[in-house]
Amino acid sequence: MSIVKMVEYESAEPEAREVFDDIMATRKTDWINNFWKMLAVYPPTLKRIWNSVKEIMAPGKLDPLTKEMIYVAVSVTNNCNYCIHSHTAAARAKGMTEEMLGELLAVVSLANQTNSLANAYQIPVDERFKV
Amino acid sequence: MSIVKMVEYESAEPEAREVFDDIMATRKTDWINNFWKMLAVYPPTLKRIWNSVKEIMAPGKLDPLTKEMIYVAVSVTNNCNYCIHSHTAAARAKGMTEEMLGELLAVVSLANQTNSLANAYQIPVDERFKV
Amino acid sequence: MSIVKMVEYESAEPEAREVFDDIMATRKTDWINNFWKMLAVYPPTLKRIWNSVKEIMAPGKLDPLTKEMIYVAVSVTNNCNYCIHSHTAAARAKGMTEEMLGELLAVVSLANQTNSLANAYQIPVDERFKV
Amino acid sequence: MSIVKMVEYESAEPEAREVFDDIMATRKTDWINNFWKMLAVYPPTLKRIWNSVKEIMAPGKLDPLTKEMIYVAVSVTNNCNYCIHSHTAAARAKGMTEEMLGELLAVVSLANQTNSLANAYQIPVDERFKV
Amino acid sequence: MSIVKMVEYESAEPEAREVFDDIMATRKTDWINNFWKMLAVYPPTLKRIWNSVKEIMAPGKLDPLTKEMIYVAVSVTNNCNYCIHSHTAAARAKGMTEEMLGELLAVVSLANQTNSLANAYQIPVDERFKV
Amino acid sequence: MSIVKMVEYESAEPEAREVFDDIMATRKTDWINNFWKMLAVYPPTLKRIWNSVKEIMAPGKLDPLTKEMIYVAVSVTNNCNYCIHSHTAAARAKGMTEEMLGELLAVVSLANQTNSLANAYQIPVDERFKV
Repeated sequence: MSIVKMVEYESAEPEAREVFDDIMATRKTDWINNFWKMLAVYPPTLKRIWNSVKEIMAPGKLDPLTKEMIYVAVSVTNNCNYCIHSHTAAARAKGMTEEMLGELLAVVSLANQTNSLANAYQIPVDERFKV
Repeated sequence: MSIVKMVEYESAEPEAREVFDDIMATRKTDWINNFWKMLAVYPPTLKRIWNSVKEIMAPGKLDPLTKEMIYVAVSVTNNCNYCIHSHTAAARAKGMTEEMLGELLAVVSLANQTNSLANAYQIPVDERFKV
Repeated sequence: MSIVKMVEYESAEPEAREVFDDIMATRKTDWINNFWKMLAVYPPTLKRIWNSVKEIMAPGKLDPLTKEMIYVAVSVTNNCNYCIHSHTAAARAKGMTEEMLGELLAVVSLANQTNSLANAYQIPVDERFKV
Repeated sequence: MSIVKMVEYESAEPEAREVFDDIMATRKTDWINNFWKMLAVYPPTLKRIWNSVKEIMAPGKLDPLTKEMIYVAVSVTNNCNYCIHSHTAAARAKGMTEEMLGELLAVVSLANQTNSLANAYQIPVDERFKV
Repeated sequence: MSIVKMVEYESAEPEAREVFDDIMATRKTDWINNFWKMLAVYPPTLKRIWNSVKEIMAPGKLDPLTKEMIYVAVSVTNNCNYCIHSHTAAARAKGMTEEMLGELLAVVSLANQTNSLANAYQIPVDERFKV
Repeated sequence: MSIVKMVEYESAEPEAREVFDDIMATRKTDWINNFWKMLAVYPPTLKRIWNSVKEIMAPGKLDPLTKEMIYVAVSVTNNCNYCIHSHTAAARAKGMTEEMLGELLAVVSLANQTNSLANAYQIPVDERFKV
């Protein structure tokens, strides 16, 4: 259960509705997922976040699937339930197979393990790694 | 400063030295970075972690560079100083350019931002995202 | 679902019941929220935590609403479901409007984003920021 | 030690220099702190983050000092060294006294304590806290 | 709700079934908990993790109950719902009483509080603590 | 570098000096470590935290060494540099050998790994684990 009520398209303020329209046009869909309906309770954040997502997740030097898997890696590490679900779904939509997901999570869980060892011992950074 | 003294090759126990040899042979180098020298203080962990790293980070359905960038994403999210340095260096060695690093960190920081919004509102998972 | 059964007023041990009474007297209410009923399974913790909360959350150099919003900020960053709900409710009871909540979460999510960038690059602290 | 070299004003690309100019004009100072010099290694992020900071940290329903202290609360919880230093300095510049800092950190550390108790027991959210 | 469907014994691949058999033989039970059924979606991870758990959680210099309580401490700090439930149950099965649980969580929550104070003030490590 | 200047015994306020005296008497030492000198900048916190530490870390159903190792486990998971150093030192003073430390960190890093897998798959809690 959330801490505020989500805003549906019909009852959205004009500023929010404009963002909803842009999301659907950009993604070629007529569906708005809960994340955006929730941010619509405070339109300035809805607008700012959508603009950032649109700009950052567009194809660039990294392909969209790689970006989506990086998103999953962060969401798992933060234990963000909604984010794990939405970005795993997005990665699947962009071509991630179950075996790729298996490998992805193997890396993520290994990283969490070795991170905690490096933190535990407070290992000094090697000279060769310094810029 | 670390909480135990690292173990150099010369003074390593046979079990640890064997792992050091395998690391150098696998990576075609004569250099051992501090992470492994530190784990050598407790050889069972050194052996187990190296075997996991060798198996998981090998090429599979995901290419080695993608895996390394996922490692960076987790390390940044955990704020693991040593890990950020070592895995950024490894990713560069595998072909990551400065522009790719810029994009990678843009995704990582965006994910940390939207994760905290999803957590804040405790957004319910959409039916479509459920398996 | 919790990992132990909560303790209701009627079945509470005297030491816990005394704390329950103080909570209701201090807050001018006849209602005890689940957090305290749960801590009552181990009375020494119930007593210690309530005393800390009473002392720290009282008006001081910072007003109670500011303190409550700081509590929300930490709870969101830790992704503590119960805490986000209870402290958002408390902040509303102390006068936080929906617009203030919107601004608060904009700051919290921005902080989580820039924190991850500062960690990623391992930015050195400016001389001027040193005490 | 950081993972890339910071960009000084003199050697910054035009897109980054424009942001530097806006930072100095907005803050009425001729000084750029390391955070921005670092982000300048990837101008799209520098520009996006600065625009967000300028918009979100401006006076609104919450006063600038309250926002700055919320920033400190998140930075402490994330254990972001650079962020703790820069935002504590900013809060002091906006009027935070040493006693206010003392109270702020008392709340932050209490929240981290009670968050871990709520997580430990997996306390169910009270009906009254549901929206 | 999980992001993939769990694998039951009957429909498990031979590689996974072999691990299931080893788990039941080692634990002298005919029951497999959800964690293993879920990891079975990617058998290499199932096998690797089970081997690590079997090796690390076996009696050694630390007794099994102490290890299990350490597991609970980490799970609470990470806010891992499944892990808190499964490792609290395991600790109880190994002899942890409700009073011991009460003390354990008092230490864990105190540690989270003092950790955030040490991070907040960025306290320098005493010379005597250096190795 | 810390964000405030530590308070030495000689210049401490009476309220802080009283706590310093109690720390030295309780621990049978004439040495105060930096954590307490730092908290002395805000005496109410110094007093409250010391009272909690004295009460919680005293022998009870769990022995002092077990408590200290649980403290290390939390500190590693939170990546608190100061805390890792001080509580590892304290655990050594209470009898922890290097092999016990090796085992402790093996459990902590395994827990961080399996926690991230449980979070990733969002594994449902087994009926048997419910209270």
